[in-house]
Amino acid sequence: MSTDASPDITGSTSAALNGTPLPADDPERQLIAKAVREVKDTTPLAQSFTNFVTVNLVANAQLAAGGTAAMSYLPDDIIDTAAIAKATYINVGTLLPFFKDALGNIARSLQAMHHPWVLDPVAAGIGRTRSAILWAFRSAPPTIVRGNASEIIALAGIWDLNVPSAGSDTGAKEGTTRPAGVEAVDDVDSATNAAIVMARYLRSYAPNHRAAVAVSGATDLVTDGDTVYRLPGGSSMMTKITGAGCSLGGVTATYLAVADPLTAALAASALYNRASEQAAEGCTGPGSFQTRFLDALWNVTAEDIAASPIIVSHVPASQNSVSPDTAGTA
Amino acid sequence: MSTDASPDITGSTSAALNGTPLPADDPERQLIAKAVREVKDTTPLAQSFTNFVTVNLVANAQLAAGGTAAMSYLPDDIIDTAAIAKATYINVGTLLPFFKDALGNIARSLQAMHHPWVLDPVAAGIGRTRSAILWAFRSAPPTIVRGNASEIIALAGIWDLNVPSAGSDTGAKEGTTRPAGVEAVDDVDSATNAAIVMARYLRSYAPNHRAAVAVSGATDLVTDGDTVYRLPGGSSMMTKITGAGCSLGGVTATYLAVADPLTAALAASALYNRASEQAAEGCTGPGSFQTRFLDALWNVTAEDIAASPIIVSHVPASQNSVSPDTAGTA
Amino acid sequence: MSTDASPDITGSTSAALNGTPLPADDPERQLIAKAVREVKDTTPLAQSFTNFVTVNLVANAQLAAGGTAAMSYLPDDIIDTAAIAKATYINVGTLLPFFKDALGNIARSLQAMHHPWVLDPVAAGIGRTRSAILWAFRSAPPTIVRGNASEIIALAGIWDLNVPSAGSDTGAKEGTTRPAGVEAVDDVDSATNAAIVMARYLRSYAPNHRAAVAVSGATDLVTDGDTVYRLPGGSSMMTKITGAGCSLGGVTATYLAVADPLTAALAASALYNRASEQAAEGCTGPGSFQTRFLDALWNVTAEDIAASPIIVSHVPASQNSVSPDTAGTA
Repeated sequence: MSTDASPDITGSTSAALNGTPLPADDPERQLIAKAVREVKDTTPLAQSFTNFVTVNLVANAQLAAGGTAAMSYLPDDIIDTAAIAKATYINVGTLLPFFKDALGNIARSLQAMHHPWVLDPVAAGIGRTRSAILWAFRSAPPTIVRGNASEIIALAGIWDLNVPSAGSDTGAKEGTTRPAGVEAVDDVDSATNAAIVMARYLRSYAPNHRAAVAVSGATDLVTDGDTVYRLPGGSSMMTKITGAGCSLGGVTATYLAVADPLTAALAASALYNRASEQAAEGCTGPGSFQTRFLDALWNVTAEDIAASPIIVSHVPASQNSVSPDTAGTA
Repeated sequence: MSTDASPDITGSTSAALNGTPLPADDPERQLIAKAVREVKDTTPLAQSFTNFVTVNLVANAQLAAGGTAAMSYLPDDIIDTAAIAKATYINVGTLLPFFKDALGNIARSLQAMHHPWVLDPVAAGIGRTRSAILWAFRSAPPTIVRGNASEIIALAGIWDLNVPSAGSDTGAKEGTTRPAGVEAVDDVDSATNAAIVMARYLRSYAPNHRAAVAVSGATDLVTDGDTVYRLPGGSSMMTKITGAGCSLGGVTATYLAVADPLTAALAASALYNRASEQAAEGCTGPGSFQTRFLDALWNVTAEDIAASPIIVSHVPASQNSVSPDTAGTA
Repeated sequence: MSTDASPDITGSTSAALNGTPLPADDPERQLIAKAVREVKDTTPLAQSFTNFVTVNLVANAQLAAGGTAAMSYLPDDIIDTAAIAKATYINVGTLLPFFKDALGNIARSLQAMHHPWVLDPVAAGIGRTRSAILWAFRSAPPTIVRGNASEIIALAGIWDLNVPSAGSDTGAKEGTTRPAGVEAVDDVDSATNAAIVMARYLRSYAPNHRAAVAVSGATDLVTDGDTVYRLPGGSSMMTKITGAGCSLGGVTATYLAVADPLTAALAASALYNRASEQAAEGCTGPGSFQTRFLDALWNVTAEDIAASPIIVSHVPASQNSVSPDTAGTA
């Protein structure tokens, strides 16, 4: 009934900014290594509905990580392929008019099929067509959202999530009207609360109650709504090629084809940090960087990825309640 | 009248699996060398209506082979350009809703112009829009079809061609309801009969009664309906970049601009085998492989291509009858 | 009222073919160096509505030159982004049916916003949809047009500009019905008069009365309508990759975000000449050339660009009158 009712979150999540290193023997590291190996061994199919600018890089990155790719812009294709693919990636970077209805229909079909998918809300806040599409996803949300800080904050606003302001307990919502471009104008930490609230919102719709939000930046942030993981490292050359973020979203879907949402998001982010560092060594500009980056996606080992530095902080249990709007659930 | 009548082929073609090396002085090798040289010398224009994922690689591959490229998604563009281009490439990998009518109209216009074209039936069998488009091509078919084994089998099914089962004479049709993804799930040999029947079907519509079908895989297969050519070699790294098959289709159209369909398909397949082998030497992953592959397309000589290992087997003369449905011919 | 009235230009401009070297201390060289540095220092956003073939290269070239990129195909996106971007690039290489209305609407909105933009009239003269779009731009023209000689001549024809024939004073118009493909069939010099007349036409609509036309070829030509600059150099390998011209248009928009139209066009052309020369050294084919070219766009210095050989010739003052049709102005 109340599709515009605001989901609520009790208390502040702004304390979740510090943390401790994830132990070397933490089971999550084993899950990451297992996911990376399983993709290389089983070449799972993850399909994509992604923007025209970087669709080639998304497919090549998924192949370099070991997966199989299929790209489409038609609901009948996507639904047919969802029956044989294990995950789907949707990216709203470049839109055509017919996408407005198509993407909402696809999301509802994927929801009915209990099919996991990754959303990349590129340029959230720009253009009424994009806003209408992102709004349509509110009642048929993805399993993982991956974006830069500005996009995560803007999407939380579009979805009318009740995000507490960072550093205060006043309950004032942050960012709900903030437009964001394709480049982040906010730093990763500023999206921490939006990411936590969003992850809780997503999991309230997930069949197995598991979801994740990944915020890319100088230090990446990944959360399942209970725990915040921060992954430092990577190369600043990633901001000098187009599609670094988009292809990270695609590879996240590839890992989601074999792993739980949190592990998929962590594995993809760690792979990208290690591969971009490897690519930056000896590159002589963005052209050679991109060539070397695809090579590195292919060469980085599961062990290297799983051994990545990860800082973990737990969101206080008292904050673990969230009452999402459920009007749109199937 | 009977657009759904099934074309018939008398007898089995499944014997055509073995063969002998094509002699070094076979005239076909001279035709291949001539085609490769003529492209480098005359930079012929072949235009493309191809998917958004790999359109850049298709154009770059055509340029690297020596040709000129023009890409479009509009019937008025395609028809205008067909008047100055010598061949056209159509690839149904990524579709938009308006393609459903546009592609059928384009095929009928090309047929009326007696303009040769290459079809890449990417993902044949997936999605009702793609199936409708491929069905529309049945009565205005291409000069060459190039696909992986699954796509060739699926397209033969969509076109309702009467393909005898491999290894039997029961006349049971194979693959008519088989859906295939963008990756082949069948090996090349399993598509031999479908390829032969399809080549005969295509040539029954061709103004000069010449056509070809090319099946890509570990060992490529090319047939004009009378003879089956198999081309071993190439690099498995071709499966780790997106667009290897699509760009092969584009380069086939480039050669079709200067040569007969059989020669064009053989030359393109042989070029791709030699270039991918050259690219694989010393590459350190799929990024450097793709860069080196474009260089190799540029550097491989007409002599190297024409000297490629080719195994030839003739389809028994008794099988050389085919009664295609002609309801759709202009 | 008279949207088909022909703009007039008094006298011949065909004398403007010779010239003298631009002095090392010419202020224009300082403006070029300043523009290049300012892009690297301030990473300005230039957005693009560009073809699907080379959209990735356009974005990567803009990033390599130091700018920021955003790509879209929707009027609401473009208009929203125009409010935060400093320039826009529109390229009509690949069209979809809805572009026919969308692009005219976008041009009119940009005009109302006094927002500078660059047009790349790819394949001008091919297809009625493209011609209709280019015609729509006549009354809401760009700040800069960049194309090859055939495209500039064809666009002058579509706009019904009164271009005097080269080498005569008869006033006979040249090229008004000439169709041109994506490859130039005319040499740069043959488009000199069309470029001069077009630059005068563009500036008659420009808020600050400044505009430029750039003709790419073996020797590039840039004019603001008063002076003709010719920039020799560059590598012929640029014709062996797709998107050399498109990405030059995109980078021109990046410079237009920080500089006047003439300086932007000169800086982009000089950068491309220097970068392509650097890339050609040691490349082993078009694949390595493209990788090295993106690296070179990143590495070429403002000093190198500003010191480029430039031949300058002034159009006689008596020719400096033009009476454009103003029926379509806002």
